[in-house]
Amino acid sequence: MSEINGERLLADLRTLAAIGGLPDGGVDRLAWSEHDLAGRRWFAERMSEAGIEARVDAALNIFGHLPGTVGPWVLTGSHLDSVPNGGRLDGAYGAVAALEVLRTLAESGDPLAEQLEIVGFADEEGVRFESGLIGSLALVGELDIERLRDGLDWQGVPIRQVLAGAGRDLDRLLEAQQHRDSIKAFLELHIEQGPRMEADGIDLAVVAGIVGVHRQRIEIQGTQNHAGTTPFRLRHDAGRAAARAAAELRDLVQGVDAEAVANIGSMGFHPGGVNVIPGRAQFTLEVRHLDEPVIGEAVWAFATRLERICAEEGCRVVVELLSSVPPAPMNETVVAALEQVCRELGRRPAKLSSGAGHDAAVLSRHVPSGMLFVPSVGGLSHSPRETTSDEHLVLGARALLRGVRAIAARIK
Amino acid sequence: MSEINGERLLADLRTLAAIGGLPDGGVDRLAWSEHDLAGRRWFAERMSEAGIEARVDAALNIFGHLPGTVGPWVLTGSHLDSVPNGGRLDGAYGAVAALEVLRTLAESGDPLAEQLEIVGFADEEGVRFESGLIGSLALVGELDIERLRDGLDWQGVPIRQVLAGAGRDLDRLLEAQQHRDSIKAFLELHIEQGPRMEADGIDLAVVAGIVGVHRQRIEIQGTQNHAGTTPFRLRHDAGRAAARAAAELRDLVQGVDAEAVANIGSMGFHPGGVNVIPGRAQFTLEVRHLDEPVIGEAVWAFATRLERICAEEGCRVVVELLSSVPPAPMNETVVAALEQVCRELGRRPAKLSSGAGHDAAVLSRHVPSGMLFVPSVGGLSHSPRETTSDEHLVLGARALLRGVRAIAARIK
Repeated sequence: MSEINGERLLADLRTLAAIGGLPDGGVDRLAWSEHDLAGRRWFAERMSEAGIEARVDAALNIFGHLPGTVGPWVLTGSHLDSVPNGGRLDGAYGAVAALEVLRTLAESGDPLAEQLEIVGFADEEGVRFESGLIGSLALVGELDIERLRDGLDWQGVPIRQVLAGAGRDLDRLLEAQQHRDSIKAFLELHIEQGPRMEADGIDLAVVAGIVGVHRQRIEIQGTQNHAGTTPFRLRHDAGRAAARAAAELRDLVQGVDAEAVANIGSMGFHPGGVNVIPGRAQFTLEVRHLDEPVIGEAVWAFATRLERICAEEGCRVVVELLSSVPPAPMNETVVAALEQVCRELGRRPAKLSSGAGHDAAVLSRHVPSGMLFVPSVGGLSHSPRETTSDEHLVLGARALLRGVRAIAARIK
Repeated sequence: MSEINGERLLADLRTLAAIGGLPDGGVDRLAWSEHDLAGRRWFAERMSEAGIEARVDAALNIFGHLPGTVGPWVLTGSHLDSVPNGGRLDGAYGAVAALEVLRTLAESGDPLAEQLEIVGFADEEGVRFESGLIGSLALVGELDIERLRDGLDWQGVPIRQVLAGAGRDLDRLLEAQQHRDSIKAFLELHIEQGPRMEADGIDLAVVAGIVGVHRQRIEIQGTQNHAGTTPFRLRHDAGRAAARAAAELRDLVQGVDAEAVANIGSMGFHPGGVNVIPGRAQFTLEVRHLDEPVIGEAVWAFATRLERICAEEGCRVVVELLSSVPPAPMNETVVAALEQVCRELGRRPAKLSSGAGHDAAVLSRHVPSGMLFVPSVGGLSHSPRETTSDEHLVLGARALLRGVRAIAARIK
């Protein structure tokens, strides 16, 4: 039975981390930046050294499979781009582990190697441009080219120009989807990017699904007035109404479902004078859960309570939908196979939902898909301090190898 | 018994409102602006027409008394400057009513006229420069010239230059205090600028005192984190802690004293991303009451609860004092005299605290002082929609005449 080379995996992770590496241990490989492109070239070179045929598609996703194989393949990998001043493992870990798995299988002449393709996706993060997941969306043919056409990055550079600099044509991004039917399943290994596994002593987790995310912008309209001359009973204080609702958010959402999470990330009172009763308060609301009806119920519970509070305070509520991304449940057969892998590795199968988005959410709408998580120390991610122990990194890659074998056996 | 001429009072108020008047009925006579100076000239001319000797002091306060009288006088009046896009009555009403009272007494040969001086103060509002109350502070010798010396207005014009344009020298502002000892009492008639009198059906109110104002800037420090991957139980959400405290402010303050008011006028969460748990929350707190110990108790009650909430949320609190202006109780003899005036006019004496600052707060530290309020329609002030019914405007001036007579009799 083939086994991955842990030292080689860790060495490759260190080498890739140096490309766009920062003095504080962080990494800056913003999508299609010079460093991102250098990282992709490095990834392709490692493939070639291992006798894997590398191919770069219209979106600069990099694929690799054994020469002469024709698919459909079980695809595994993750993204190679990072957020600015990000960590060395977010995305890179799943791509490098995929490389290590296919390399291991190829070296040992394992016939599974012929059923496997690996990938380093482009622009998963969505920091440089608004959207994110451009690589995987192009692959599955879901990319909305019209929306991207006049897109600028945060420094005002047109996305068209960025792609041209990397030898790619914006209008031809969707040619990436020609490869879609050559994929029969997808497995992504990733760091958790949260604190739950560490807090609960879990070494390896099977992702049950990727949560849906509902976002609103809420404005409360009251009456701006003099804070010295207006007694409490005669106020319509938009700030107070917003604070009361925000204070109750957690209990309301947990009352609907213990696994639901929500956030009020921004809050502003207007006009903002120390002696002026706020006439308006604005805040954002985000609710996440694996089941869409639960999201709806939680949003409704908050809205109902907010309406009640505003009626008490003599204020009005205006709600604007910002976005609503549906949950992406992972494939049941894949999940069952990955739970079996955990048991083979002596770990009690732990199922988690992913609170963050991933390429696997996009792939799951087209092929049976699954994800494996290893713990993030301190739950930190999108930070130079993002890290995972070597033991967990190696464990994850071992699980990935067993995972692709189990999936190849079960998904035809 | 002399009685003021209501029609003349209302006509004068209309004429003054046209100086710096705006199409929407508002007034713009920012301190020492061209319109403010024109208003002051108009005020002096009305005095001269009535045989009152007008005098402009080093701070551009305008005084008027009968020729040949030497004081010490009972002073009455208010300020002539306005906020930008302000109302026609804030300040102007008390100054024009004072003019009407002295004019009435002079016309009828009432000996009380000799005991009376009237004033139109300069820069009460404190909008053009940070401080405000410059006119009355200069009169009582409390003005901090050093702090003003490098002061700029909001358009970058040095205060020195503004004063020079009006024929005054910043370094000589304190010469205004030469007049202080000629004043034996002060009475100010003003609109309420709040909704309490209208709400409670009060036509005329005696001000018990001007509230003290305590202001803080509060920062709550938590842990910035990913809102999708961090479960509620592992969060240190600075925004939630701030919202919980803000939601409880009213009950905490009212629990200390039913007359205490407080405000959270500004609130901000950082970094402010829809999907980021706030690592910091900043807000301002303001507490007002007529008794300083009550302010202290209310501030303490909030601070104690905030500390408790932050301990529960795993956050820290940093409190910065912005300012603390002590309460200014009105003189008991003056208050009793004014209550008697209410009864003479067939009104049940109603005592109110003033939630906003006034020149009377400054004067009260040096001579027995008092204030009378008439209702503001809808409680509106610092707005073009600020207004008071003609009946109440006339009633207030009638009370002012009786008030100065009662004070002249009781304060020696």
